[in-house]
Amino acid sequence: VAIDLNADLGEGYGVWRLGDDEALLGIVTSANVACGFHAGDPLIMRKVCEQAVLRGVVIGAQVGYPDLRGFGRRRIDVEPDELCADVLYQIGALDACARAAGAEVRYVKPHGALYNTAAVDRATADAIVTAVASFGVLPVLGLPGSTLAVAAHERRLPFISEGFADRAYRPDGRLVPRRDRGALLTDPEEVVARSIRLAREGQVEAIDGSVICVDVRSLCLHGDTLGAVVLARGVRDALIKAGIAVEPFA
Amino acid sequence: VAIDLNADLGEGYGVWRLGDDEALLGIVTSANVACGFHAGDPLIMRKVCEQAVLRGVVIGAQVGYPDLRGFGRRRIDVEPDELCADVLYQIGALDACARAAGAEVRYVKPHGALYNTAAVDRATADAIVTAVASFGVLPVLGLPGSTLAVAAHERRLPFISEGFADRAYRPDGRLVPRRDRGALLTDPEEVVARSIRLAREGQVEAIDGSVICVDVRSLCLHGDTLGAVVLARGVRDALIKAGIAVEPFA
Amino acid sequence: VAIDLNADLGEGYGVWRLGDDEALLGIVTSANVACGFHAGDPLIMRKVCEQAVLRGVVIGAQVGYPDLRGFGRRRIDVEPDELCADVLYQIGALDACARAAGAEVRYVKPHGALYNTAAVDRATADAIVTAVASFGVLPVLGLPGSTLAVAAHERRLPFISEGFADRAYRPDGRLVPRRDRGALLTDPEEVVARSIRLAREGQVEAIDGSVICVDVRSLCLHGDTLGAVVLARGVRDALIKAGIAVEPFA
Amino acid sequence: VAIDLNADLGEGYGVWRLGDDEALLGIVTSANVACGFHAGDPLIMRKVCEQAVLRGVVIGAQVGYPDLRGFGRRRIDVEPDELCADVLYQIGALDACARAAGAEVRYVKPHGALYNTAAVDRATADAIVTAVASFGVLPVLGLPGSTLAVAAHERRLPFISEGFADRAYRPDGRLVPRRDRGALLTDPEEVVARSIRLAREGQVEAIDGSVICVDVRSLCLHGDTLGAVVLARGVRDALIKAGIAVEPFA
Repeated sequence: VAIDLNADLGEGYGVWRLGDDEALLGIVTSANVACGFHAGDPLIMRKVCEQAVLRGVVIGAQVGYPDLRGFGRRRIDVEPDELCADVLYQIGALDACARAAGAEVRYVKPHGALYNTAAVDRATADAIVTAVASFGVLPVLGLPGSTLAVAAHERRLPFISEGFADRAYRPDGRLVPRRDRGALLTDPEEVVARSIRLAREGQVEAIDGSVICVDVRSLCLHGDTLGAVVLARGVRDALIKAGIAVEPFA
Repeated sequence: VAIDLNADLGEGYGVWRLGDDEALLGIVTSANVACGFHAGDPLIMRKVCEQAVLRGVVIGAQVGYPDLRGFGRRRIDVEPDELCADVLYQIGALDACARAAGAEVRYVKPHGALYNTAAVDRATADAIVTAVASFGVLPVLGLPGSTLAVAAHERRLPFISEGFADRAYRPDGRLVPRRDRGALLTDPEEVVARSIRLAREGQVEAIDGSVICVDVRSLCLHGDTLGAVVLARGVRDALIKAGIAVEPFA
Repeated sequence: VAIDLNADLGEGYGVWRLGDDEALLGIVTSANVACGFHAGDPLIMRKVCEQAVLRGVVIGAQVGYPDLRGFGRRRIDVEPDELCADVLYQIGALDACARAAGAEVRYVKPHGALYNTAAVDRATADAIVTAVASFGVLPVLGLPGSTLAVAAHERRLPFISEGFADRAYRPDGRLVPRRDRGALLTDPEEVVARSIRLAREGQVEAIDGSVICVDVRSLCLHGDTLGAVVLARGVRDALIKAGIAVEPFA
Repeated sequence: VAIDLNADLGEGYGVWRLGDDEALLGIVTSANVACGFHAGDPLIMRKVCEQAVLRGVVIGAQVGYPDLRGFGRRRIDVEPDELCADVLYQIGALDACARAAGAEVRYVKPHGALYNTAAVDRATADAIVTAVASFGVLPVLGLPGSTLAVAAHERRLPFISEGFADRAYRPDGRLVPRRDRGALLTDPEEVVARSIRLAREGQVEAIDGSVICVDVRSLCLHGDTLGAVVLARGVRDALIKAGIAVEPFA
């Protein structure tokens, strides 16, 4: 059994920083690097790529809406052809940074409101996979069962399903919205146990107590707080101890 | 004898437009496509690339300072490593757009204040050529005798010299600043005659009446006014009539 | 009988321009000046304010989403408190420009997608009127019968209703969406006749042939094309010839 | 004897934060609030203004170059009329936020590269004081002996001199550049002692050991690190213990 661990990296801008990139690069196997539209700037992107290469971490493009102010968390009614061009632009920009560091962009993952919109809106999902396909046959990382997964499959792009050990699931396999009660799990032991079960059995207990199947090849970790980083390391260590190989999907 | 004709294209942003891209694509052999930092946006970039491919025009990256408001015409004291990352980002972003259109970025030309600064400031010139070299062995297009030319040569990047038939030259081969009297030539016959002489003999009459050598492989044309487009077409037609091959350098 | 004529002005950015501000300032009585979020920049704002003062045109704040790239035409899911702060910021910025020119902001009109969203979404309308009220007791200009009108009334802010002589109306008094067939009227004679009827009788023929009441104190004119400016002037001349006073509402 | 304590506040943007605003508002008497061009956004501005009013802290406009990416630390060759409009815009925007909180902008202080440029470049200094004067008779806060001080005096604007207890001075009264050795003083006892001497005697020991006169009405404190906040509090406590009144200049 093998599992990939992914996390968002390079989410600063100019003088501002967010999350502990250095710590996360020692934990994850795939880095979702922000591409300058909702976070990240060229210098940060270059440095993250260089560090990722040194640590053997695979680089993916974390693409988002053009909205630094809202950190990509606000849905914008972008026309599909404009969104498609925006995604292509971001992938190309990051790929140049990755190549300068001796690597390349190996997958694409939408961020924030774009992630959520692409999970349910076909035009948005199509715009993203069209952009990816016009760049190359790259895997798309996202929510299993989402519209984005359907769009990727139809476009014959590999789709990599990810799971969240620290988020509550609804019985239908979708995530409980962040603002709802019980959406976030904070007990380290519980999160670790869910990580192992997700990785080994592809199962998770939903918020109503039922057990659902979530066939995931990657777990999404967070690093925006000190506690999050400690928890992420705990998950990695526990997975390895449980005999699960932690390795990139790409 | 052969000469390349280059012009700035894709210099709109969102709803705003500047210059007549369509007309220019029927005249030039090399398109300096703005990359979103001082002008241009992903959708405009994609469309210009598609049209350039249809017209057989070579695509180059017109890189600039991150300054939409100032159209890249204001010098910004950027740290070299930040400038280098910015240039690399822009090249990569445009290359993705070009590749989606079946082409690729074939050269790089700095724009506005970055062009002027790179012509005299070694740190700026080095940052640009370092970025280009980390992307690939691409030619740099610029002013003959400039610091940028020196930096490119040392970095073993091809440097393509360009001339300006509608700008006055100083006896030392540099351009008379735009704001000075006599800096711009507007008489169509004179501009056409200078174009032919530049292309055929590599010579131009400086503002003091002396004749100087300007060994150029490309002429820079403008398309920001109706008159400019008519003049650009006149130059192209006259060159061909004079038996000079109009063809891309790349 | 008196009517105000309003139009969007100062919608350029940096080197880019949109519409013929100078011509419009000779036609309208109220200028909706863009405030830098979806169009406009500080220098353009100052110059438009100075010209408006010279021509005796009243200055209003044309507030929008923070989206230069989309010209404020793309709905953004902004949190109400953030939208409220954004609107307040824009009003204050324009007011400083207006005061430096010897005037002041006399009313507020939302632009593009914000106009459309505020017409139907209560949270958006409330955020706008809260911002306006926290700045001063300024009139809000918008669509009669809209949610924005309701929100303004409840907040005890004057609401000024505007009509569109060149847009088709639905029987319920709302506008036919731009993308629908017949949404835009282009016959100058018809537009002029509708202008007079709107100003004098507060009536307009809807797209289904029924006559509806649209009690308006202002007509919105456009100036983004040469034809639009000529038409705007025709409307103004015809109104005056018909004995209708063309004067600002503020 | 009385002294004002000022510090930069509201220097976050979107999700990003910089410095401990809440702690600083309990220490300073004047808050230099960023206005959205190099840092700060409308929501942050509103919240800082509200908190400043609650704590009795005076609000000033921290104006800067339009450069979020560079945090206003990179000099930009802006035309004077454009800079003037930019400064006016920022003051007006913050004033609207301050007024909504029951206060108003009481002074203006340039930030970063604009501070440094205005200290030596007359065109820059003139552009700033012209903007301030067109808004109202507000004091300008800056370096004693600077070109900005001269420009303010000629424009009949009050100029408030500030000192830095944690920065090394040259014998001519100017600051040792940050990048030079010994530019920053970090010993808390020394910084506190210099603060008291600056406040009480208007004197400070320069880097060559000579004692120079720096007649200051305000001390600039920093809050970007935990240590900086602790030091700032130490300075305030020591000043009060030494019998020096800590109160706003405005």
